[in-house]
Amino acid sequence: MRELTVELGDRSYPIYIGEGLLKEASSYFIKHGISQKSPLLIITDSNIADIHLKTLESELAGAGFKTASVVVPAGESSKSLAMLETLVAKALEEGLDRKSAIVALGGGVVGDLAGFVAASYMRGIKFVQVPTTILAHDSSVGGKVAVNHPFAKNIIGAFHQPELVLYDLNTLQTLPPREVSAGLSEVIKHGLIWDESFVAWCEENAEKLRALDAEALGYALYKGCSVKAAVVSKDERENDLRAILNLGHTIGHALEAVAGYGELLHGEAISIGMVGSAKLGMRYGAPEEVYTITKRVLAKAGLPVRLPEHLDVDKIMEAMMHDKKFAEGTMVFVVPTAIGSVEMKSDVRIQWVREIVEQLKQEVQQ
Amino acid sequence: MRELTVELGDRSYPIYIGEGLLKEASSYFIKHGISQKSPLLIITDSNIADIHLKTLESELAGAGFKTASVVVPAGESSKSLAMLETLVAKALEEGLDRKSAIVALGGGVVGDLAGFVAASYMRGIKFVQVPTTILAHDSSVGGKVAVNHPFAKNIIGAFHQPELVLYDLNTLQTLPPREVSAGLSEVIKHGLIWDESFVAWCEENAEKLRALDAEALGYALYKGCSVKAAVVSKDERENDLRAILNLGHTIGHALEAVAGYGELLHGEAISIGMVGSAKLGMRYGAPEEVYTITKRVLAKAGLPVRLPEHLDVDKIMEAMMHDKKFAEGTMVFVVPTAIGSVEMKSDVRIQWVREIVEQLKQEVQQ
Repeated sequence: MRELTVELGDRSYPIYIGEGLLKEASSYFIKHGISQKSPLLIITDSNIADIHLKTLESELAGAGFKTASVVVPAGESSKSLAMLETLVAKALEEGLDRKSAIVALGGGVVGDLAGFVAASYMRGIKFVQVPTTILAHDSSVGGKVAVNHPFAKNIIGAFHQPELVLYDLNTLQTLPPREVSAGLSEVIKHGLIWDESFVAWCEENAEKLRALDAEALGYALYKGCSVKAAVVSKDERENDLRAILNLGHTIGHALEAVAGYGELLHGEAISIGMVGSAKLGMRYGAPEEVYTITKRVLAKAGLPVRLPEHLDVDKIMEAMMHDKKFAEGTMVFVVPTAIGSVEMKSDVRIQWVREIVEQLKQEVQQ
Repeated sequence: MRELTVELGDRSYPIYIGEGLLKEASSYFIKHGISQKSPLLIITDSNIADIHLKTLESELAGAGFKTASVVVPAGESSKSLAMLETLVAKALEEGLDRKSAIVALGGGVVGDLAGFVAASYMRGIKFVQVPTTILAHDSSVGGKVAVNHPFAKNIIGAFHQPELVLYDLNTLQTLPPREVSAGLSEVIKHGLIWDESFVAWCEENAEKLRALDAEALGYALYKGCSVKAAVVSKDERENDLRAILNLGHTIGHALEAVAGYGELLHGEAISIGMVGSAKLGMRYGAPEEVYTITKRVLAKAGLPVRLPEHLDVDKIMEAMMHDKKFAEGTMVFVVPTAIGSVEMKSDVRIQWVREIVEQLKQEVQQ
């Protein structure tokens, strides 16, 4: 079992990573002050409910917790204000009070949604994350929670830190291969922005990771969470440093929007975006190997590095202009300077970005 | 011009109270770092827009601010998730970015709604309050913002502190007498929980206050804000001390819910609630004069101290059970021990509360 702490002053919290933690959840909940008197609400989705919900419910009930559960449809469309209204109705119905907690059992969608319920119900109650995907290692650090607006993703949200994160590696064993790779995309991103040796480790261990080897996976999640925790600890509210976590995301978000959510998984979209950022880095003088290594490690993790031919470049550019990372009309990009190191560039020429997006269609998929 | 600071560490902010501040808004905005590059969104309601919106818009535009405005229907029903969605669409359309600010021009409803837009848009942008009612002196301190759920008032919200509050006494001159009195209810509450001499001052100056005498009103708002600021500074997140601000609110909220929002104004409902709390205080040994003075000062301010006969006691009790101030099933009340002093009582007997609600129908309206 591995443990790390996200250092945020009086909002610091631990992340536990190990096998079989779901069946020991109650002891962790008790240790971290989750109330046994006030009801808890477990929020999960239709993919996870059948596999893991009963285990968590009976573990908690057996230890004297009062739990209620709600299952939302799997997928991004559940991250809506309408679903927030439904979940708040459920919380009221179950009598959740100021000392209650919301438990997110699932991936990033469930974490974002349940986290925003916890952030806004009664102006904020406790929140516990039980991630069931590799991708969720990313959203489990930093407290960013949100729902979508019909016009923009993640535009309505909050910063709301969990009390604890319980990462049971066993829940990852049922992930389909494509989602495994998509999850590894954010793991690799954490290496690319912060830790060259971890990028090398990811490349060497790509096969083990894709085969869900528990030891390798535990280490990768620990490292990924650690990098993110280090960044977030220094910049909780995304004023400056935290923005480096957006490597590949400016292009990535635009691809997701244009492809329609679903064609490209988030991790796939940012994989292509990170290749684009590496190419942009070369324009600022980064060595070509930054681009070749970036592309190679992503490809070994089973990720796309080439933009699907049918996606329209004009639409991608337009989607990027609406991206919330453009402060005061200026175009800002995170670009690598070396493997394990990035810089923020403002005043990036839109023409460069367009050329790179066009070139991404010509990449050779390895 | 009076000025006070709400002390909240790095979230501290000033409140300016004076005549004609709306016409000097830009200098205050500039002084407190509101961006002239990123667009601002002024949110106001249909009552205020005709009277004050143009003044604020042209004052800001004249100083180089980019402003857009949106007018919501006056009244509590605008505090909804549907309206949040509409306002976020407007913010996106107008290109608001992370450095933009939301400006609330209006009373408590506008402040709560606009504040929650500011709290949740892009996970939180800047917020400026320009209150136009006496009641809003209360919501302008402490950062409590929220919208309603069909099943419960203010249940979806956040703590989000403004950058500054600009209280132009001239905007209060058009308030109808009933709203003046309702606003004074929270002013008097701040005296009742904290400052005996201010309660005496309110009683002596009740006529001036009701006549909207600028000097008296400025002082009353300054004192009311100061008490609230003192409480909030010690307890931003409503863990303990801040709960004393709920004097009269447990009964008051139930009355509002049962009467249907509109029959009783918020200030009127809590006026009746404060009389009830004073009676409850007597059961805990407070002297009778606490009750008589409470009732007298409220009546002099033109407020009801008697429960309308037709409101059903069972329904009022039921509404109270859903009130969010009951943590872990225990009934909690704020009760006065003297004028200017209150205590939290937990384990308040429900039977006592019922008896007091019944007695409130027999009060003699002075």
